[in-house]
Formats: sequence, C-alpha cells, structure tokens
Amino acid sequence: MSNTLGEKIKVTIFGQSHSEAIGVVIDGLPSGFRPDMEEVAAFMARRAPGLSELSTSRREEDKPQIISGLVDGATCGAPVCTVINNSDVRSGDYGKLKTVPRPSHADYTAMIKYSGYNDIRGGGQFSGRLTAPLCFAGALCLQLLAECGITVGAQILEIGGVGDLPLDPVRVSPEGLYAIRSKTFPVNDDTAGEKMREEILKAKQDMDSVGGIIRCYAIGLLPGLGEPMFHGLENRLASAVFGIPGVRGVSFGAGFAAARMRGSEHNDPFEINDGKVRTKTNNHGGILGGISSGMPVVMDVAIKPTASIGIPQNTVDLNTMENTVVTIGGRHDPCIVPRAVPCVEAAVAITLLDMLI
Amino acid sequence: MSNTLGEKIKVTIFGQSHSEAIGVVIDGLPSGFRPDMEEVAAFMARRAPGLSELSTSRREEDKPQIISGLVDGATCGAPVCTVINNSDVRSGDYGKLKTVPRPSHADYTAMIKYSGYNDIRGGGQFSGRLTAPLCFAGALCLQLLAECGITVGAQILEIGGVGDLPLDPVRVSPEGLYAIRSKTFPVNDDTAGEKMREEILKAKQDMDSVGGIIRCYAIGLLPGLGEPMFHGLENRLASAVFGIPGVRGVSFGAGFAAARMRGSEHNDPFEINDGKVRTKTNNHGGILGGISSGMPVVMDVAIKPTASIGIPQNTVDLNTMENTVVTIGGRHDPCIVPRAVPCVEAAVAITLLDMLI
Amino acid sequence: MSNTLGEKIKVTIFGQSHSEAIGVVIDGLPSGFRPDMEEVAAFMARRAPGLSELSTSRREEDKPQIISGLVDGATCGAPVCTVINNSDVRSGDYGKLKTVPRPSHADYTAMIKYSGYNDIRGGGQFSGRLTAPLCFAGALCLQLLAECGITVGAQILEIGGVGDLPLDPVRVSPEGLYAIRSKTFPVNDDTAGEKMREEILKAKQDMDSVGGIIRCYAIGLLPGLGEPMFHGLENRLASAVFGIPGVRGVSFGAGFAAARMRGSEHNDPFEINDGKVRTKTNNHGGILGGISSGMPVVMDVAIKPTASIGIPQNTVDLNTMENTVVTIGGRHDPCIVPRAVPCVEAAVAITLLDMLI
Amino acid sequence: MSNTLGEKIKVTIFGQSHSEAIGVVIDGLPSGFRPDMEEVAAFMARRAPGLSELSTSRREEDKPQIISGLVDGATCGAPVCTVINNSDVRSGDYGKLKTVPRPSHADYTAMIKYSGYNDIRGGGQFSGRLTAPLCFAGALCLQLLAECGITVGAQILEIGGVGDLPLDPVRVSPEGLYAIRSKTFPVNDDTAGEKMREEILKAKQDMDSVGGIIRCYAIGLLPGLGEPMFHGLENRLASAVFGIPGVRGVSFGAGFAAARMRGSEHNDPFEINDGKVRTKTNNHGGILGGISSGMPVVMDVAIKPTASIGIPQNTVDLNTMENTVVTIGGRHDPCIVPRAVPCVEAAVAITLLDMLI
Repeated sequence: MSNTLGEKIKVTIFGQSHSEAIGVVIDGLPSGFRPDMEEVAAFMARRAPGLSELSTSRREEDKPQIISGLVDGATCGAPVCTVINNSDVRSGDYGKLKTVPRPSHADYTAMIKYSGYNDIRGGGQFSGRLTAPLCFAGALCLQLLAECGITVGAQILEIGGVGDLPLDPVRVSPEGLYAIRSKTFPVNDDTAGEKMREEILKAKQDMDSVGGIIRCYAIGLLPGLGEPMFHGLENRLASAVFGIPGVRGVSFGAGFAAARMRGSEHNDPFEINDGKVRTKTNNHGGILGGISSGMPVVMDVAIKPTASIGIPQNTVDLNTMENTVVTIGGRHDPCIVPRAVPCVEAAVAITLLDMLI
Repeated sequence: MSNTLGEKIKVTIFGQSHSEAIGVVIDGLPSGFRPDMEEVAAFMARRAPGLSELSTSRREEDKPQIISGLVDGATCGAPVCTVINNSDVRSGDYGKLKTVPRPSHADYTAMIKYSGYNDIRGGGQFSGRLTAPLCFAGALCLQLLAECGITVGAQILEIGGVGDLPLDPVRVSPEGLYAIRSKTFPVNDDTAGEKMREEILKAKQDMDSVGGIIRCYAIGLLPGLGEPMFHGLENRLASAVFGIPGVRGVSFGAGFAAARMRGSEHNDPFEINDGKVRTKTNNHGGILGGISSGMPVVMDVAIKPTASIGIPQNTVDLNTMENTVVTIGGRHDPCIVPRAVPCVEAAVAITLLDMLI
Repeated sequence: MSNTLGEKIKVTIFGQSHSEAIGVVIDGLPSGFRPDMEEVAAFMARRAPGLSELSTSRREEDKPQIISGLVDGATCGAPVCTVINNSDVRSGDYGKLKTVPRPSHADYTAMIKYSGYNDIRGGGQFSGRLTAPLCFAGALCLQLLAECGITVGAQILEIGGVGDLPLDPVRVSPEGLYAIRSKTFPVNDDTAGEKMREEILKAKQDMDSVGGIIRCYAIGLLPGLGEPMFHGLENRLASAVFGIPGVRGVSFGAGFAAARMRGSEHNDPFEINDGKVRTKTNNHGGILGGISSGMPVVMDVAIKPTASIGIPQNTVDLNTMENTVVTIGGRHDPCIVPRAVPCVEAAVAITLLDMLI
Repeated sequence: MSNTLGEKIKVTIFGQSHSEAIGVVIDGLPSGFRPDMEEVAAFMARRAPGLSELSTSRREEDKPQIISGLVDGATCGAPVCTVINNSDVRSGDYGKLKTVPRPSHADYTAMIKYSGYNDIRGGGQFSGRLTAPLCFAGALCLQLLAECGITVGAQILEIGGVGDLPLDPVRVSPEGLYAIRSKTFPVNDDTAGEKMREEILKAKQDMDSVGGIIRCYAIGLLPGLGEPMFHGLENRLASAVFGIPGVRGVSFGAGFAAARMRGSEHNDPFEINDGKVRTKTNNHGGILGGISSGMPVVMDVAIKPTASIGIPQNTVDLNTMENTVVTIGGRHDPCIVPRAVPCVEAAVAITLLDMLI
C-alpha cells in the first residue's frame, strides 16, 4: 500500500478496521501551531458513525490521542502522531469473506494482491474507518488554511437522485460554507435534505443502499497556485480525493456538463469587480491551466452506493471456484455520502495546504 | 511548473508552443526495447493538427527526432530524449494577449504565476501542442504494454451532446479497441460519428466550439495492480489525465451515474467464467479498492469546449484595469476531443506501465 | 522535518525524546511476512542504552508495541505501525538549554528553524533515541533481506584512534558478519576492542567523549542494483546513513584513501573465479557506476565524538546575547559508536530492501 | 537509470558520450530570471576537456543550445531545455569493451543491468561527459543563489598526496571563493598547485592516473535550512554529489578526522560576534542536526584516480569466460579532479537552491 498523501506536508495513515489502533503521522506542519482540539473533535464528529439511524450502529469514540509532535499544545516541528483505538470491534462477523468476496468490495482484489494475507476483518485496510485519521489531519490543515484566509466546505449535492440547491459558485462565502458545515446533514436546502434522508431510509428498509454527489468549495485562494502540467490543482486534488473509499468520479467547475456546452456558453468572461479581476460565471471552477484563478475552487465528487447491502448477492467461492451467494451481515451505512463530506473537505484541505506551504 | 509524470518511468515534457522546439525525456524504460517508429508516427498522427477541416490549420510535421537513449534502434538504459521542432510558428497573432486575457485560457493565471514573464505566444507552455511529446512517450509505453498483453484504447463517447454507442465494458477486446483506434474519427458507431462531425462543423460555422467525453479502456491487466489509499489506480490515472489541457472531469466505471444507482444495481456480482473469477457487469470499471480486478478498466474523461472561439468575448485589460472585449484570431480547433483521444491513451499507458514495472 | 526514508518501502519515524511515545510506520512491506520478534528484540537490544558502563544510564525497555499491519503474526499489506513508550523520562534536566545552546548539538539550529517551539527536552526530535524505531524497521528489513540471501553487518573499525582489523573486503562471509553482530562490542579483533573500551572509559573519566568509524558490509547482492546518476547505491545509502545523528562522513570501498592511490593500484582487476566474474581486490566497494558489482558492498561511516560532555563549555545566552558557559548534566554516552552500529545496519538494510523490491 | 536531481527544481540529465546530443531539462526555476550566458560559458569552460596537457585531448565545444524555457532571455516558467551536441566522437575506439570490461569502470555492471544493451561507446551514459549538462544547470543555480547572497566555491584540497592549504572554514569569504574559482587550477596555494600538476604529469608519463580531494564551501546560508532526519543538508548534498562519476566519499566539517577527536576538541563553542551567533571553530561544517547553522558549509569530496589508464590490466572476457588482459586506448584524463571541481559546485548549487525555494 501507499498511504502517504502530500509532498511537503506528508500525511501517513495506518491501521485496519480491527487492528489494535488506527492513526496518522503528519510531518511538515509549521511549528508553533496550536490546534484547537475542540474544533478538531467537532470536525471528526461529522464523520463518526453511530450518530443517527442513517449510519452504521458501530460506535467508536474516535478519540484521537496525540503521542508526539506537540509541546504544551503547540507543534514543535516533529511529526504529529495521533492514535485512535479500535474499541467496538466484532471480528466474528467477517470470517468466511476470505473465500467469498463481497461484490463491489476490495475483498477479492486485496486477496489477490496480498496473497490471502490481507486483513479481512471489517474491511481491513480498505475500511472507511481509515478516513477517521484522514479527518484528524484534515482538521489541522483546515485550521492552518483558515489562518491564511482560506475556507474549505462542502455540501451534499445529490443523494439517491434528489438534488440540493447548489451554492452560487461565484459568490459563495466563508459564512455560507460554515453555515452548511455546521449542519448535521450538510445541505443548502433543508427540504431537499429531508427528501434525501427519506431516500436513504427507504434504501435501508429495502436492505439496499444509495450513492450521491458531494460538491466541495475552496475560497480565499490567491491566483497562482498549482504546478501544471502534472502537479496542477486538478491533478493534486483529484488524486487525493480518489483516496477516499467509494469515490468514482471527480470533476471541476462545470465538470461533465461542460462536455455538452459550447465554448461561448462555457467560457467565463473576465470583469473588473471592486478593482479586482474576477469572472462573471465560474464554469472553470476556479482553475485555469491547472492554476488557481482567485475564483472559488469548485469540485464535484461522485460517491457510489454503499457496497455492503443486506440483500443476498451472487458471488463466487474462491476455494471451490464455484458460484455461490453471499448475504452480508454486520452493521453498515445505507449511504456513506453524509459521512464522506468531511473526508472530502479533509483531503482537499491537506492538499491545498501542502501546495501552499 | 512540474512537468514530470511517473515515478519509475519518468516522463518529463518541455517546450512552449513557439519555442525553438518541444520534446520529452523518458527515463526508466527497460533496455533492449526496440520501438516500432512507424507505429509511433501513426499514433502521433492521430493527434497532429491540420489533418482535416475539423482541426486547426496550423500544420506541424511533428517529426520526433530522438537524440539520446537508443543504440542501433534499441533502448540502452539511458533516458530517451526526443525533440520536435516548432516550424509553422506565427507569433504575430498573440501580441496583445499579455494584457487582455482570453476567457477560459491560462493567460491570466499564467501571468500572475509567472509575474508576466510567461510565454504568451501560442499559449506558451499551456498549449495543446505540448501533448505531442506526451503522445510520443505514450506510443512507446503502449508498445511495451502490448508486450505484456495489455491494450489501451479509447472511443469518443460524446461530442456536442451526440452520444456514441459504448463498447461492452465486460467483453471489450483488443480487436475492438484496435478497430476504433484505426479510424480517423474514433467512434464505435460511425453514424453517431457523422452526427458529431456535423456538430463540430456547425460550431465552427458559428465561430464557436464544442466539448465532449472520451471513454478509455485498458484490458489485459492482471488483478492486483494499484497501491491504495493514495497510489491506487484511480489516484494515479486521474492525476495523469488531468495533465491534458481541457480535461474537466474523470470518472471510473459507472462514474457519476453511480451516484444515482442503488447498491443492488451498482454492485457487480462475481461469477466463475471459463475457470476465472469475473464480474457479470462492470460498474466498478475494473478497479476495486484502488486495485485492478482483472476486468477491463473503464475511465471517462470530460473535455471542455475549446476556449479559443472567434466570437467577441468580454474580458479585461490588465493595464488599464477596465473591461474590454477580445476577439481571438489565429487558427483553432472547433473541438479538441478527437485529437485528445490519443492524449488520453498516452497518459493512461504511461501511468499503467509505470505502475507495472 | 522530513522523517520518511525510502520510496517503495516508506519508513516514517515519529516522536521526540520525551514525548509520550516514539515510533515508526513502515509502509510497503510484502504481505505474508512473519517477523521473528525475538530476533527483532535482540537487534534492538544492541542499540538500547543502559547496558554497560560505556553508555548512558538512561534505561528504556524499548519494547516495541505493534498496533497495526500484522494479522496473526503476518504482515497483511497494511502499514506496520509500532509504538515505543517513553518511560524513563527526566525532563527537569533540560530547562535552560532553550536559551543556552549546547555546542555541537542541534539546540541552536532547531530553535531558529522552529522559532523556539522545538522540543528541547532530551534533544527532542534530534535525540539519538529516534534511532530505536529506525532499528525496529531495520530489523524487519534485515530479515527480509536474509530471505533473499543478503546479509548486512558492521564492525567498529576505529574508536578514539584505536583501529580494528578490517574484515577481508573480498571474502567477507555471512558467518563472519554474524559472528561480529553477535558480540556485545562488535569488533573483529577483541584485543583492539578492549583498547577501544579503555579509550571510551578514559574519555568518560575526563568527562569527555570520543568518536570513531563504522565499516558496514552488505553481501549477497546480485550485480545490477542501483539507478545512476542520482539513485545509485552510493546516493541512496549515503543519504540514508546521514539520517543517523552524529554521522559526519560516508565513503565506499577505498574511500578517502582512494584519493592518494594511483589508478593502477586502485583499479580492481576482474577475474573468473568458480565460473563467476569477481574482482581480485575490492577498492570499488562493490559498486561501479552506482550499480552493484556482485562483490561485497563496503561502506565506512565516520561518527563524531558525543556532543554532550561534562566539561564546561563556552556558548552564548540567546536571551541576553552574551557569551556564557554551559555545563551539561544529564546522562550521556561517552561514545555513541557501539550503539550506532545497528543503526547503520538498519539504515543500509532499509535502503537495500527498498531498492530491491 | 534515474537522472533527475532535485524536488522542486528538477534537473533531468540525458544523453550518452556518443549519442547525437546530451542535455538537461531544468524544471521549476523562478520566472523572470535572466541567466548571464557569458558567466555560464565561463563556468562550463572550467569543466571542458582539451584545455591543457592535464586532460583528455577530446575537444568539445560544449556549446549549450537552449531550446525552450526562455523568452527574450528571461525564464518564462516553462522548463529550460538545453542541448549540447556531441561533435568530436570517435566510436571506433570502444568496440571490444562490450565483452572485456575495463577495471573500475561501469562496463561490467552496466552490461549486467542493461542486458548488454548499454551504450559502450565512450562510456555511454556513465561518461564524465554527462557532467557538462550538470554544470550548465549548476551555473544557472549559482547565479540564482548569488542573488540570495549565497556563494558556492571549491578548492582542490589534495591531488596525488599533495595537499593544498585549506581556506579558513570560519572566515572564508565570497571574495576568497571567487579568487579560487577564477584560477585555471583552483587551489589556494599555487605552489602546492604546481606540485599537484607535477604529480598528474608524472602519472600521465607512467600511463597511470591519480585521485584527490575537493573541498567545497557554501557561504551566506541563513541558519535553519534542512529537513532532518532524512532530508537534512548532509543527506541531500551527499546524495547529489555521489551522482558525479568517480566520487568515493563525502564528509562534512571535520569529517573522518572527527572520528579521532575528543568531544572537547571537536565541539565548536558558540560566541557572540558582531551581535550575531557564530562558532569559534567550524568542525561542524556549518550543519548541526541536518540544519544550517549560519556558519560556512564545508564538504569534502574524495575522487578516485581515473579508471582509464594506459597500463595493461587483468580482466575477463565475458564471451569466453576466461581471464584476459585489456589495454585501454582512447583519450583520457590522468586526473579528473580539476575538472570535477565545477561539477561539485554545480551539484551543491542545484541542491541548495532546491532546498531554499
């Protein structure tokens, strides 16, 4: 595996769903930074399971224990290592998955790649649980970005076919992003949010699952960030976000819709606004030629429906090499989109800070 | 800028649209490899401009001159450096762009990033011309992949809203990919292709442009390739493909459509087929947990409409900081999608070979 | 800081001398590897302090606790994270060093680099204690190298001017290296070793310290390893070994003595020996053009005398910006060379395995 | 091979001794930099062959042709690619070396590594000629460092056992370094230089060769540069310098002599000097804990005697696998140390600029 994200700020994630602990080493943070641990906890709580009927009933305290890198609450230049214990572990549920891979999971590919030695318990190293340390690292980076006047925030744009009202990609503000970030169910239009929740619960009743789209914004970036051709903003952000389990697509600005536009419609006219160069529209999603334009960065992230569903599914038995059926027990989210929101914010924040420093 | 793609095979691209030459250094190729230069030329011709009324009238021979790395036609272990001269250069067209940035181009962001020293002629380092050396490198990597039984090929999936018939993502074959690669206009259904060409010509007549979607396949990969969380197949492929100018989105398998599926619909059942583990459907696009599953890798790439259009556009004058209008002269493609097809194949081929070696 | 060593096997070290814990994340190990933990403990014991009158009286159990990456004793593909608690910590000793930097320590440079936020307690992130997790990682890599027929071992070549009898650089054997590795004081000639120990004790009595040279061998490498110009064996090994505190020089084969030889003396004639290509002498230290020749790799590492000495020393007070005198209390090794031996072996083993995989 | 040096400034070298051309791509230079090409030429001339009876009679104009990256003489942000044609090539001399490897050359290891496809002509990719593009890149970096008040310069410290008078490592000045850099034979004490030249000529008469030591200084660095443990100044500088053919050892400050010192002798007392923190002596070579201290950086580089000597040497025939004798014809330097001086300066300058930016 290759669990390090970033070049100057290196975020290295470790652990499996049922190992003794999971955690993260963050190397390269500026010294003298005093993370607000309450804010960190609040951020991590947005990802934590067990909070509502919408998510898995596995409960984890997800309490990060910092074992290095801080002196009297301030970063000292040494890597910050944080450990999160795995407490509520029920490994019994996963025994036979080793030979009967669950569809759309990494069971089969992991078994091949690691010659059967992969940790199958709870999804092992492929578990969504590994996004907890990612969120810890992201929470620190968000605070450091805030000190530079940069705000990162995301909304659920769509779940189960129900769309939210997008924020205005030209005028989105820190306040607007914070308002959404503070909600339990981070949408712009709470009525749409209510319908999404219904879709999730319907899927849950059907022992099925639904997917969705997250739209993430980064505002306050000065123009000039990004190193094209291969280390531009899109390359770096997309690469980071695809590290989150379940992500199937990433686009910027008008994204795939741009493919159906004409140039005259897609091009964003420049204008002078308050003495600054701005664009009237933001189909370019704040990035031109891989470099930030100073307009809000707008990124869409497609999340697949949770692979773990209660409905019996066709699969194979790798021992007998015969077709069989698997019924997945255990505790699972009918929709991971809400919990993926802070994960996307975290991956974006880590990457932006890494590019800025 | 950061113009190096790859870790073990390092592809470093250099040059600007109107510099004396552009080119590429390819470091890390296995020794003893004898590139078929006719095949390389044929591959590069697919990207070359001036071939039809659909593309810019700028004509470049695009003749790659190999100045190091080969001995008697075989790689010797030293980096292969290839230079392509810039011959048909008309720099006069671009003078005033320095202060009047073209909408949706990198003119403005480059000017900020490089403090006005960026090469504005022909788009400078942001020109699509830089994909010529990318295609040279890709052509070599495609040949090496072919020796490992791996075929990479792409179809135009959509242009100007006209869709092509997708290849079967479960049964796509090398022959099927080669058949499409051999066409001047690489679609599956030539009738659809004809309609796309009409859309392009209509846009051209309107001095406008259109975008589209490319679907790229890689078949023959054994299961087990990819290093999650952050160097999995999606991270690496997406990061590479976003290096191609005009790319706005990348997705795998069902992509953004997965967001509207239920798990029961999206999950791909495993089955034993000819003694091998396969999936019945391929919504996962050949990748599970960042690792190849042995099924065809399927990736969609959204391309924006060409930014350069003949219609007058609103923009600003950076000298006077006042609003103004720009009318872009010069020679431009009304649609870059057809020429982007080999570029996507090249980026994918380089990345896969880099991950395999 | 940048605490990651390796490219495919990434070893990330964290912690400070007096943080709650120190440790290491090892990413990229092959799956299915069952480390022999007794061997690991024995290897780490060679570095551990408090074992004799020759080293600091700080006693640490140095018991590595593996919190991820193993399932039933075998690597599962996920990163191996190991934590070592800091138990015997006496932070009181170090208070005033923040403003009165100890000569030849990193106190001053760390204070500047980290704006005074650096952890001064026990040397913080610059403490030799951080080599404990390095040795843990090295112990695993040594076992994996052994499976490939590669042995790494080192002898103390010189301490306080007393020289050991070097092993024969042409005929050094695994048995020879293991014999030295099994000694408490790893020299070839125990009489020389006895004199070295006397030098160390003399220095200790004088409240002073001595340095020395370590010679490290790697045998069993096939010819062909190394990626010149900038990732050859020398580049990689030297870069790794300079990560060990106190290292002042690294050389290969005849090293600095080569500078005084003539070519006719320094060149190693090839010969056929038992059907194999060998060299009669080994001034090239097993490396030609950055690539292994199949002969034993021979590397010398110069270690400075311990910076912490009991004798009062001239220094400055950074508060008053006046000259002053510092007398260092605490517990210190009069010579770190013996404990540095496994550290050098570890850095070499990690790097070789990383290059081999 | 892996021919890229640097992380933010990436210097990629390509070519073989007898390929059509050699050259370098420099990516990441700041935009708006106008290299003084006369200074570049003067710097490269110090490395160029054919200048005196002390070096090979191969004459190369070594005229770098810049084919990208500059607009009107200033860097534009795109990579600078420079090509140097190989004109004076006599490939006939090298035919049989493919099966009869020259002692102390990379012939044998390259043949194994590249399965016999390596370019044997003139040493191929292992030729000292590849240091010409390194010097081009170094010349640019030296100019950029000079703008930051940093001077890099080296003296020949020793050749054939004859020692030069070292510069004062505490008080070495830009003027002192420039004075030596301007000499054809860069020593401090010209009488010593004269004796060294005699040693070289004596070796030449004997159809033999001699080695030596180069001492390189970098002054003007502020304290705080370097990222320990594994990207500190020593790690980075050593790794870079070992990329120069013939380097066998690298040390800092007192280097290997430190191994024979006591701490009380080796430790450099701090003192306040002109209101600044300085050390009275400079055994630490300007680096403490991997981080610059603000004192001059002092690095010694051991260079082996030229491997190519006219005296017949024992070797093997890889075809017959029998012992044989080789007599090397062609044109060779009896001592590469003088020409290696600017190469060391170049490698140091590239690395320091890369760490600074």
